[in-house]
Amino acid sequence: MSRTIPETQRQVQLRRYPEGVPETSDFELAEGPVPQPADGEFLSRTLYLSLDPYLRGVISGRHLYAEKVSTGDVMPGRTVAQVVDSRHPDFAPGDTAVCSNGWQEYGLSTGAIDLRKLDPEAAPVSTGIGILGMPGLTAWAGLLHLGEPMPGETVLVSAACGPVGSMVGQLARIAGCQAVGIAGGPEKCAIVKDEFRFAECIDYKTGDLGDKLKAACPEGIDIYFDNVGGDVLTAAMANLAQGARVVLCGMMSGYNNTGPPPPGPSLIPLVMARATVRGLVVYDHEDKQQDFLRACTRWLQEGRIRYREDIAEGIEEAPDAFCRLMRGKNVGKALVQFA
Amino acid sequence: MSRTIPETQRQVQLRRYPEGVPETSDFELAEGPVPQPADGEFLSRTLYLSLDPYLRGVISGRHLYAEKVSTGDVMPGRTVAQVVDSRHPDFAPGDTAVCSNGWQEYGLSTGAIDLRKLDPEAAPVSTGIGILGMPGLTAWAGLLHLGEPMPGETVLVSAACGPVGSMVGQLARIAGCQAVGIAGGPEKCAIVKDEFRFAECIDYKTGDLGDKLKAACPEGIDIYFDNVGGDVLTAAMANLAQGARVVLCGMMSGYNNTGPPPPGPSLIPLVMARATVRGLVVYDHEDKQQDFLRACTRWLQEGRIRYREDIAEGIEEAPDAFCRLMRGKNVGKALVQFA
Repeated sequence: MSRTIPETQRQVQLRRYPEGVPETSDFELAEGPVPQPADGEFLSRTLYLSLDPYLRGVISGRHLYAEKVSTGDVMPGRTVAQVVDSRHPDFAPGDTAVCSNGWQEYGLSTGAIDLRKLDPEAAPVSTGIGILGMPGLTAWAGLLHLGEPMPGETVLVSAACGPVGSMVGQLARIAGCQAVGIAGGPEKCAIVKDEFRFAECIDYKTGDLGDKLKAACPEGIDIYFDNVGGDVLTAAMANLAQGARVVLCGMMSGYNNTGPPPPGPSLIPLVMARATVRGLVVYDHEDKQQDFLRACTRWLQEGRIRYREDIAEGIEEAPDAFCRLMRGKNVGKALVQFA
Repeated sequence: MSRTIPETQRQVQLRRYPEGVPETSDFELAEGPVPQPADGEFLSRTLYLSLDPYLRGVISGRHLYAEKVSTGDVMPGRTVAQVVDSRHPDFAPGDTAVCSNGWQEYGLSTGAIDLRKLDPEAAPVSTGIGILGMPGLTAWAGLLHLGEPMPGETVLVSAACGPVGSMVGQLARIAGCQAVGIAGGPEKCAIVKDEFRFAECIDYKTGDLGDKLKAACPEGIDIYFDNVGGDVLTAAMANLAQGARVVLCGMMSGYNNTGPPPPGPSLIPLVMARATVRGLVVYDHEDKQQDFLRACTRWLQEGRIRYREDIAEGIEEAPDAFCRLMRGKNVGKALVQFA
């Protein structure tokens, strides 16, 4: 490591709590000190920052675990980073790791469970916070463990062009299922079909979603992997096959809401279909990480699964990239590559 | 059988489709012929008629299976009846059976799967359409097979004074669980606690249901057996324990609605609790009938399970008794005893 460690760094702080959809002016680029590692810690330089919809809930204190972010705090977030100084026995300068530096150039890590060393030979390191990271594990656990797919079944997934949805469809295909996606707009739908090789992709922005679902899933939906909630969930629930499973993974349609959550879909179709609905929290499935990484790293190398990244360049672009994500304007996994 | 079989009989027909809550004037007492059994059929005289909330859906063509009732048709319904003339190999005059005579004094039965001969020595025959009939099997299958109770868990059930709810709580107690009921008004709540021996019963008509649920289920609800839907379901979903199961059995709060079903509860609490929601249709569980009858007949004889009936006397009272049921005015299983 010939690069000198500076004394100060750039970081993005929360300037004010967003109302509804976040705006770039809710964030502020600031200067902060670069900390020094204590015993058992290491300092790493951020290479990639992951932008995820769940951060919207973290800001508002609505996330399951994370503490609410206060104004003036550095925004939190998962990162891929290179170790530059270490007093941790397992990490040496030059190592690449998945850690939680947040929206800043340098961060300290301890030996927490969410640290993972990356092998740059196995896969591009950015995948450690994408298809081979939390989004990938979410798809793996939700589809395979909660959805319990059987070959020949029809798997529907919303936000199909996103990192979770695209992985769900590709895993469904590998498991012998018919993958049908829902995405917004012709560009995303084309990517879902051509690049991620779903059998079909429905544009929810035009026409009647219920009619389109009936046409794309003539025998009903066996598994619906829901990333959005709202009207799309309601339409999917009206087209379930007998014995269907619904996996609730995200509620993108509600993340920008303020106030109490709006009502959900009528549950009567659930009774009609003898369906099962399960809530997915990825943190419950850390025990499946080794199985997931073993299988998916190989499939990635073999080209059996593909991924797409939407990369913004430079820490100063992080606020705008996050706001675009929360308006559904990204195509692929939203990342910020640091200079 | 010394009683002469008459040529005509009394029957209750649907006079007009109810709007919202049914009224007695929606029905009409009429005279009709007594049919003669063909080969493989038997004629039986109705002793007890079962009145059930699902009939409200049947009238409107909203029930899962049953054909819509047309105006002028005899109202359908499950009955306990005595065979008076038979050309069926398994049923002889004098036998008592559960069959589907509907709202009339005499009816024909064929060898369909929903026929069951009753042993009047084993239990009062009226229980064949109550605690030892479809309501009992609903509770059995929903609690034990979909709810999967573990000893020590807290089981919450709504409409706890009704035939399904009271059975759910008593089975929960037998399975080593803590049974908590929800019912409307102090009279029903007292019966649920004193007669059906639930640990607690909440009156949903007074005070804040959420607060009462928190107090009655301080460690959260492990199983919620829902008979009502609506606000009660929403309140229960806000108080689920981790890994909770929600069994959707009925939507009493919506049966009198016309138009499309209203929205359901927000599903976000489901994700938070990693809960599972399953829809229950009792017809799927006919294969469990023998296990259910063997266990519950014995428990009934031993006094380990109890039941309560709300009996109207005479076929002419059937419309009023049904309307009272649909306003929640009954206390116990709603039956009509024929003269």
